[in-house]
Amino acid sequence: MSNGKADGKISRRDLFRVTGAAGAGLALGAGGYSALRGAGDETAALPGLQTVAFRDVHQAGMATAQQEHLHFAALDLVTEEISEVRDLLRAWSEAAERMTRGETAGDDNFSQFLPPDDTGEAFDLSPARLTLTFGFGPSFFEKDGEDRFGLADRRPVALAPLPPLTGDVLDEGRSDGDLCVQASADDPQVAFHAVRNLVRISRGLAVVRWSQLGFGRTASTSKTQATPRNLMGLKDGTNNIKAEDTDLMDQHVWVHEEDGPSWMVGGTYLVARRIRMLIEVWDRVSLGEQETSIGRHKYSGAPIGKDDEFDPVDLEAKDENGEPLIAADAHVRLARRSDEEKILRRGYSFTDGFDAERGQLDAGLFFISFQRDPHKQFVPLQQRLAANDRLNEYIRHTASALFACPPGAHESGYVGETLLEQA
Amino acid sequence: MSNGKADGKISRRDLFRVTGAAGAGLALGAGGYSALRGAGDETAALPGLQTVAFRDVHQAGMATAQQEHLHFAALDLVTEEISEVRDLLRAWSEAAERMTRGETAGDDNFSQFLPPDDTGEAFDLSPARLTLTFGFGPSFFEKDGEDRFGLADRRPVALAPLPPLTGDVLDEGRSDGDLCVQASADDPQVAFHAVRNLVRISRGLAVVRWSQLGFGRTASTSKTQATPRNLMGLKDGTNNIKAEDTDLMDQHVWVHEEDGPSWMVGGTYLVARRIRMLIEVWDRVSLGEQETSIGRHKYSGAPIGKDDEFDPVDLEAKDENGEPLIAADAHVRLARRSDEEKILRRGYSFTDGFDAERGQLDAGLFFISFQRDPHKQFVPLQQRLAANDRLNEYIRHTASALFACPPGAHESGYVGETLLEQA
Repeated sequence: MSNGKADGKISRRDLFRVTGAAGAGLALGAGGYSALRGAGDETAALPGLQTVAFRDVHQAGMATAQQEHLHFAALDLVTEEISEVRDLLRAWSEAAERMTRGETAGDDNFSQFLPPDDTGEAFDLSPARLTLTFGFGPSFFEKDGEDRFGLADRRPVALAPLPPLTGDVLDEGRSDGDLCVQASADDPQVAFHAVRNLVRISRGLAVVRWSQLGFGRTASTSKTQATPRNLMGLKDGTNNIKAEDTDLMDQHVWVHEEDGPSWMVGGTYLVARRIRMLIEVWDRVSLGEQETSIGRHKYSGAPIGKDDEFDPVDLEAKDENGEPLIAADAHVRLARRSDEEKILRRGYSFTDGFDAERGQLDAGLFFISFQRDPHKQFVPLQQRLAANDRLNEYIRHTASALFACPPGAHESGYVGETLLEQA
Repeated sequence: MSNGKADGKISRRDLFRVTGAAGAGLALGAGGYSALRGAGDETAALPGLQTVAFRDVHQAGMATAQQEHLHFAALDLVTEEISEVRDLLRAWSEAAERMTRGETAGDDNFSQFLPPDDTGEAFDLSPARLTLTFGFGPSFFEKDGEDRFGLADRRPVALAPLPPLTGDVLDEGRSDGDLCVQASADDPQVAFHAVRNLVRISRGLAVVRWSQLGFGRTASTSKTQATPRNLMGLKDGTNNIKAEDTDLMDQHVWVHEEDGPSWMVGGTYLVARRIRMLIEVWDRVSLGEQETSIGRHKYSGAPIGKDDEFDPVDLEAKDENGEPLIAADAHVRLARRSDEEKILRRGYSFTDGFDAERGQLDAGLFFISFQRDPHKQFVPLQQRLAANDRLNEYIRHTASALFACPPGAHESGYVGETLLEQA
């Protein structure tokens, strides 16, 4: 049977060049395509606009200007051999590097007698600024009291499981996991493709424990991005650390030598929280109550009594009757971080449809944050919010996970090497 | 409490103009934004690029060049009063017209003492070519033998429930429904916002029965669009009717006077099928088997033995041994439509995560088609495929629905008026 092609290999990027503007249109969404039609094909085909390097000091997908779509997966290992874990993480890094460049996951795609190395659905899409970020959960090191891979003594103190938090109603099946993959891209099909192919590579060694799709990022991680709105209709993440603030990133996000362990230096910790919004309840309360709960004006995003989103929050301000403009239990008051508690947020909105029993929207915020020590940054902040935040009436934390994300892969290495090769 | 704004009303589009390129960047996705940054703000802010008229002879969302994202919802009515159904459909059309223009769903958004008419999460997003398409299911007319609204005799013959199809494994909870809303847009948050606000308007009158998110369209409905790939990695919908083929649209999609009933003239019928792909099985078979199953080359999309996607399918062609190049059970052979069976496809890929039991991807194709008579077009085609298509080994039809989509709303009317006002 002829395969209708030369026998030589073809990369996604090769094809992208060939298809030109039409391929770019697919990748950018039809809006992008319409807008680009007048702009000339060259711009659209410039790969530099669409790729984020996989290999770097830190893993990509943290300081990267946040992409529009998320596909997150947590996996549990079924292998008991550390050598197989090494093989898996190396294979993941190799495939990740290829896919983030816009190439296929593997290079054997044209033999008629074998399954293709790549599943093909991103074949003529742009790289879409894909980033792939890997992490190790607490259970990777120890599960049911068992030191699984002889690495229990290398588990960072900062990776101790999160303590129970007030108000949590956690679904275990959507929480935790031995390993995680965060795929972010500007095209949902590119993010899906990446997770699917990584999961495929892990077959026999790991199984997916849970996954989450996200859209409409709920924070900005770059000064080039406007503040987006979450599904409460509120601007979210106004005071987020921005990647351009390298001093703040260094101080609050990246693990330092003195923090230990050495394999995590240049890495960071990822906290994920699936926060369901009680949409139907929220939608029935007045604008005044919505604004009081958050402590900001809904449309401008300005602190109550101010005009501009970026006006500083003045917790002392009083109205004409001497009452605080920002309520004692307003979210912005309680979420006001001490310097130590600053974190890099990188969450997304999600909707998983309507629940079958009551026909209510299962939707909300898939909160992701990166920090140098979750127990010193995320936990105290969340404890304060969980106890008193007026927003609690409108949200439920339904899942939780914590992962140690090691530093980035060097030129011939892989993510996780600092942990696994020294064992 | 000050609301930090003038008391005058503000539309989403007003705000869009103010925020300029930043707002457009949110709407186009970061890829679009990156590409646009060099192109000047004026292009980005041109609303003409981003809006599709709600009022027209036909409903929008059929002949409209297919957008990148889908949010589909089916609802069951809980009211028994036809007057309330009229009120609901009128309110839906009014909100739909506003939202497709990029405005808020309602205009009372600034009273501190009331819930806002609009939920706000699309407030500073572009209209994103949003279309909203409404339909009536068979159960709207008759349910459990009961003529619910005195309209049973107006049910079109073409809206008879679909017959059982070979191989169907249908989940009733994801099938059927009294009413449907198809929201398509180039921004998933805009599609989500539209469905959420329409559902909110229906509160007390209807409840959501099921919903489906989709991405990465699996057909092209316009000659300006390249053929996309489905999650099998195959180009899908190469021979779809294109909206520019007005003769074909007229012949195969729109209901004519002689078809009856008169309230459906200018309308069409929507078939939705949730087709789960057995991804793990598909991914393990050889490229040869994949290509034999579909009858096309995977990467080029060309018919087996040909070079170009748009080369005609030659079912008589033989290889050097005299065997048919396109197998007897290949999808393209069986899916080859007689003239009467042509349909307008407008489906999307979906993924609803991994199933809990076996860790396998719950993903596939949410097939949507529009046709003049589903029983003469969709049903015979699907019966043929269900009986013999080699692809059946790799797919399961897990849900099914059928809706009558009336003509578009005229200037002061609403979608459904032709049915409901003559009652």
